[in-house]
Amino acid sequence: MDFSIPQETKEVLARVREFVTQELYPIEKIDQGKRFGELVPMLHEKRDKVRALGLWQPQVPQEYGGMGLGFLDHAMVSEELARSPYGHYVCGAQAPDAGNIEILIEYGTEAQRERWLQPLLSGESRSCFSMTERDRPGSNPVWMDTTAVREGDDYVINGEKWFTTSADGAAFAIVMAVTNPEAPPHKRASQIIVPTDTPGFSLVRNIPCMGHVGDDWMSHGEIKYDNVRVPVENCLGEEGSGFAIAQSRLGAGRIHHCMRWIGIAERSLDLMCRRAAMREIAPGEALASRQTVQNWIAESRAAIDAARLMVLNAAWKIDNVGARESRIEISTIKFYTARAMLDTVDRAIQVHGALGISDDTVLQSFYRHERAARIYDGPDEVHKRVVARQILKEYGYPKP
Amino acid sequence: MDFSIPQETKEVLARVREFVTQELYPIEKIDQGKRFGELVPMLHEKRDKVRALGLWQPQVPQEYGGMGLGFLDHAMVSEELARSPYGHYVCGAQAPDAGNIEILIEYGTEAQRERWLQPLLSGESRSCFSMTERDRPGSNPVWMDTTAVREGDDYVINGEKWFTTSADGAAFAIVMAVTNPEAPPHKRASQIIVPTDTPGFSLVRNIPCMGHVGDDWMSHGEIKYDNVRVPVENCLGEEGSGFAIAQSRLGAGRIHHCMRWIGIAERSLDLMCRRAAMREIAPGEALASRQTVQNWIAESRAAIDAARLMVLNAAWKIDNVGARESRIEISTIKFYTARAMLDTVDRAIQVHGALGISDDTVLQSFYRHERAARIYDGPDEVHKRVVARQILKEYGYPKP
Amino acid sequence: MDFSIPQETKEVLARVREFVTQELYPIEKIDQGKRFGELVPMLHEKRDKVRALGLWQPQVPQEYGGMGLGFLDHAMVSEELARSPYGHYVCGAQAPDAGNIEILIEYGTEAQRERWLQPLLSGESRSCFSMTERDRPGSNPVWMDTTAVREGDDYVINGEKWFTTSADGAAFAIVMAVTNPEAPPHKRASQIIVPTDTPGFSLVRNIPCMGHVGDDWMSHGEIKYDNVRVPVENCLGEEGSGFAIAQSRLGAGRIHHCMRWIGIAERSLDLMCRRAAMREIAPGEALASRQTVQNWIAESRAAIDAARLMVLNAAWKIDNVGARESRIEISTIKFYTARAMLDTVDRAIQVHGALGISDDTVLQSFYRHERAARIYDGPDEVHKRVVARQILKEYGYPKP
Amino acid sequence: MDFSIPQETKEVLARVREFVTQELYPIEKIDQGKRFGELVPMLHEKRDKVRALGLWQPQVPQEYGGMGLGFLDHAMVSEELARSPYGHYVCGAQAPDAGNIEILIEYGTEAQRERWLQPLLSGESRSCFSMTERDRPGSNPVWMDTTAVREGDDYVINGEKWFTTSADGAAFAIVMAVTNPEAPPHKRASQIIVPTDTPGFSLVRNIPCMGHVGDDWMSHGEIKYDNVRVPVENCLGEEGSGFAIAQSRLGAGRIHHCMRWIGIAERSLDLMCRRAAMREIAPGEALASRQTVQNWIAESRAAIDAARLMVLNAAWKIDNVGARESRIEISTIKFYTARAMLDTVDRAIQVHGALGISDDTVLQSFYRHERAARIYDGPDEVHKRVVARQILKEYGYPKP
Repeated sequence: MDFSIPQETKEVLARVREFVTQELYPIEKIDQGKRFGELVPMLHEKRDKVRALGLWQPQVPQEYGGMGLGFLDHAMVSEELARSPYGHYVCGAQAPDAGNIEILIEYGTEAQRERWLQPLLSGESRSCFSMTERDRPGSNPVWMDTTAVREGDDYVINGEKWFTTSADGAAFAIVMAVTNPEAPPHKRASQIIVPTDTPGFSLVRNIPCMGHVGDDWMSHGEIKYDNVRVPVENCLGEEGSGFAIAQSRLGAGRIHHCMRWIGIAERSLDLMCRRAAMREIAPGEALASRQTVQNWIAESRAAIDAARLMVLNAAWKIDNVGARESRIEISTIKFYTARAMLDTVDRAIQVHGALGISDDTVLQSFYRHERAARIYDGPDEVHKRVVARQILKEYGYPKP
Repeated sequence: MDFSIPQETKEVLARVREFVTQELYPIEKIDQGKRFGELVPMLHEKRDKVRALGLWQPQVPQEYGGMGLGFLDHAMVSEELARSPYGHYVCGAQAPDAGNIEILIEYGTEAQRERWLQPLLSGESRSCFSMTERDRPGSNPVWMDTTAVREGDDYVINGEKWFTTSADGAAFAIVMAVTNPEAPPHKRASQIIVPTDTPGFSLVRNIPCMGHVGDDWMSHGEIKYDNVRVPVENCLGEEGSGFAIAQSRLGAGRIHHCMRWIGIAERSLDLMCRRAAMREIAPGEALASRQTVQNWIAESRAAIDAARLMVLNAAWKIDNVGARESRIEISTIKFYTARAMLDTVDRAIQVHGALGISDDTVLQSFYRHERAARIYDGPDEVHKRVVARQILKEYGYPKP
Repeated sequence: MDFSIPQETKEVLARVREFVTQELYPIEKIDQGKRFGELVPMLHEKRDKVRALGLWQPQVPQEYGGMGLGFLDHAMVSEELARSPYGHYVCGAQAPDAGNIEILIEYGTEAQRERWLQPLLSGESRSCFSMTERDRPGSNPVWMDTTAVREGDDYVINGEKWFTTSADGAAFAIVMAVTNPEAPPHKRASQIIVPTDTPGFSLVRNIPCMGHVGDDWMSHGEIKYDNVRVPVENCLGEEGSGFAIAQSRLGAGRIHHCMRWIGIAERSLDLMCRRAAMREIAPGEALASRQTVQNWIAESRAAIDAARLMVLNAAWKIDNVGARESRIEISTIKFYTARAMLDTVDRAIQVHGALGISDDTVLQSFYRHERAARIYDGPDEVHKRVVARQILKEYGYPKP
Repeated sequence: MDFSIPQETKEVLARVREFVTQELYPIEKIDQGKRFGELVPMLHEKRDKVRALGLWQPQVPQEYGGMGLGFLDHAMVSEELARSPYGHYVCGAQAPDAGNIEILIEYGTEAQRERWLQPLLSGESRSCFSMTERDRPGSNPVWMDTTAVREGDDYVINGEKWFTTSADGAAFAIVMAVTNPEAPPHKRASQIIVPTDTPGFSLVRNIPCMGHVGDDWMSHGEIKYDNVRVPVENCLGEEGSGFAIAQSRLGAGRIHHCMRWIGIAERSLDLMCRRAAMREIAPGEALASRQTVQNWIAESRAAIDAARLMVLNAAWKIDNVGARESRIEISTIKFYTARAMLDTVDRAIQVHGALGISDDTVLQSFYRHERAARIYDGPDEVHKRVVARQILKEYGYPKP
């Protein structure tokens, strides 16, 4: 066993850390009362700096113009980027584009890559991933109402999706729809590229969330697909492989989510310590002198360290024995890391008192936006069930 | 011991419950993307209904135009009102006006009551309470920088306050300022009425909180007092009694805060159960069938019942032996009830999944706005300390 | 609502408290390395004092020689007795005899009362209650293997029971056995009195628990019933009413369990405070100065107060509207109080450090013996389910 | 980073696992009602098998007759041994002898090693480590009352110690005593070897703990040193180096404690799963079908995996940059692992119901004996403080 981080990686991490600290921390408060669209010009200026520093799209292979980092290195970079809410966006590593880029590279035809991938790589357009439906639990990915019926050389898509993140302003959606209703459950759906200007595609609303109306990249769309007609060559991979493609990106996606949460937790712990050391609660007596605050710092430190080791271990295992053999780890890190992050954010707010409630720190933003971490990508409860059932198999449960 | 609720009280509670359910639940989603000021006209229409139903200002004595409910009855009404975020406002029982009304009735001179109390009773103007300072911990109420220096028949006030709730649009502030710097700590400050149009009074900003810019009643002001000059007759009670007055309203204020939180918790539990019973996670299988959800329902039920009994017991004790002898109870209910409420809100969100994050339910509003419950009015940690030290006295700690 | 305790009750409680403090605390360490049987003579001397003080069998009606306390009063006395592990035994209020006395008074024929009840009232013999079976979950009381087959005027009983508490040395067992296998589930079993010297009754072993071999009253028996023949008049109540009788004592039994746990928690909190105030961790610095310890004291205080109010409220409700309408409360207090007690015991141990692990305090005894509180009489998980399902009924779950 | 375990290590672990499973699991119930001394002959027969299998003293260098495993390998072996309460004893790796062996090898003179080390290596005698005092907090290791005053070529030792583990039957104690009262705090004490048959050394009692009287190796002694006279050459290392020596073994000792706890947790999780899969709670319905049980399995899996990664990471760091630079990790694993272990044991008991309380499984033994894990070797609270203060230094707290 070797827990060391290669020198080369350390240097990349330090560069990212410096960029985030110097360029992104100072703009954290810009969003007060502003819509995201208003911030885009400034963020895109930051992107120019990112490109100049050679930090553009760390997760993308070099032949596609990215940094070409390995799996673990990218995971660690993701943590650094996450210390600011704008880190991933500014480096072109933001969801859902990052995932769509990955899919298009792996499953896209040359024509698809030419038309849809290129603008994502350059950052000139955005995309979205349209899977979740209001009336169907996200935890049951094979239960879905949206259909894509083949008519001649087209699919005709009908259905309603919601929480299609970043749909507002996206150039296209990758939509999950049932193409083969008679097939076995896991082979019914396909992933189909739908340009958002296709007739019948409508963004019903940006779903207001946690008090934010949402717009542009920072939005969750409710979408209606009303006889949306696209050519069959818009299907990604083989017809019926929608679920398999979704699964294939799951391991990597999970790692990046978790490392992002760890970055958020580290930032929160950093703010907690800063505040505790500086804030006086009586003349000459810092808040840091209080044992409760010390407990929170220690417990946060422990939980974050534990989470990071588990996530890196899971990444290593995926790399070495594949995602299938790493199912327990992939589910474990989901609920463990989300909890560690949210607990740390909560403690950091408490240490800040009224200031922690205010938008004068980034903590309230973490508190609001990241509560969803325990819900999307499978709620905690589903992942615990996955872990338990996987373990219980070895004990003969359920009986065959 | 007798845990029964008088029939008469039950009837009042039922009327309040019906009003809240019929008139306020339907307007819960009106705030999406709107400022509070835009909602005021509609809310004031609701106030007309409230007056017609005889539910105006339940906490105010009948001779001042309110319902004149007793302490426990008002506490229970407060729970019912809190099921909607607009309940207290619409009934004229909203903070900080309710507290200011109480103070003015108890400590105001006739002239003060005439000029400042009347418009609050009628609802035609609003007020604020200006105590918290950014650089001084709220948990240490005798450590304060704002001063009111006597010059002739005036006080000249200088200082900075923040989290002066509802300052935006208020007719006057009651400000805590040091008038007697040489007196013993608890006799240094006075409460002074300052009309907001007095020269030198400026609302620097509404402090954006939890992503909300804030305006009108729903705001937290940062205030600068720059040589603000008011006549000495604006002092409430005797000079130097600021802390004592603040203390005197503490017991009642605590009870009402806690009952409000219980109302929020009950509403959240109600939504949790509704969703669990209705949402299918597989065909024919309700979310309510999941044991984890059942655990949450049972644990929330237990915590809310426990909190309510403790709060009513504390209220009863204050009524019977006074606030001084009830210090342990008054502090215990603060941290216990805030936690019970926040846990219930959090579970309710989890049961709603993505919907719980969205503004399509009131839960996200509770989640954001009520996080402060563990901070204002003394953070949990301070109240635990108070309880422990009070108990430890009986064990000879600290040594005299 | 009225939270006051009648003066008369207060006086009884004070007398009990004094007896427990004066007579029982000093003998708490007598059991080190001793079997219970060796302690019996000394404990029976204490019983003489109890009788002299008029504190014998507080729960038993005066016409049967007890104190004849009302339901709430007895509950509060039970708390006081529980501060010492020997309190209930010494006052003749120990399980399982207390429950058997209650059943015999309510359901016993005159002959049964004459023969079996009298010696329990006088304390000259003991009894046991034989229900739990190793291979059948206690949470499913209608799933039972032991049978009592009628042959002529006798029942012939066969089966195996375990955790038949206090079987060792008992004069008789009340055994639950299936008499009517074809009846609906809740009418299959009867409660039958079996003298322990009946041929075929054998105490296979005292089940060692938590490191204690167990003997005499302080034991949990594994019993074999091998063609045990008793006359049909040994049946309690009507044949098939075993479950109904068990249910009838459930409400009261629950209250007393919970009040006993509250007594244990109070004692533990008392020891925690004593130790914290006295123990120095640096010269002149008491352990009580540590905020973590203060948190524990405050949280224990809150949890115990909450538990007591809930239990007394449940008792009041049972008294006023019956156990059937109080099902939610009866289940809620089970899991809430057990948790509050065990948490307090655990914190008290931690405050005592190595001393808390040693038998020099009673805490380790609480820790070992009372862990079972979350298991017997229905595990936490079953009670949470009961509460949730009762609540969910109002929301139409499950669908009829 | 590389999380793989070398093939060679895997093979050792498999051999240890097999031995523990085959030879030790079957004897787990032998202690019911027996003293440890009665078990010794049988355990020593097991030691013969251990030697035959080449598994004797895995932590001891080969030149001293042990397996000579590296630090990480030994840590992982320690986990395997801990699955049975007798694992370490049977392999000659039991505390406190293992620590004393380590000290004697590192600091002992040749004469000391000849006389005191050899019998420990062969297993023919036992030793103890006498540091803790009743009236001085273990968390403050430089506050100590026992003194060793030099008189001629002797030390004369006076004082009282308790929780001198395994003193009963030990050949010698290594005692911490103040030799240089005027030196700076960390240089006041020395470690001195005291044969237990020296006049003035008396074992006052074995302190009964958690209901166990204790004897032989499984005991905690209260010791009186009354003018105990030993030659100065019995001092280990230089006079005044007692604290430094204690510190030097701290890192390794911590790792082994933690890995032992992880072994206990793994065993408990294993029993939990076994029981859940096998136990029926309704005909055909296994306990494993309950979501609460599934949650416990998943949460235990996560916590144990997290703990193991943290402990191995700490071991790796100690190996690579030394214990001094690893202080945060060394303290973090203490409180994190103890908690993970105790939570898992507790859940396993709950899943077993009444059986979990009984001595029919090893769980109750873990529950009783391992509660001390949160106390000895520094209570959780002290380690959290250490972590927090170490972190806060980087934030300028406390101010220099």
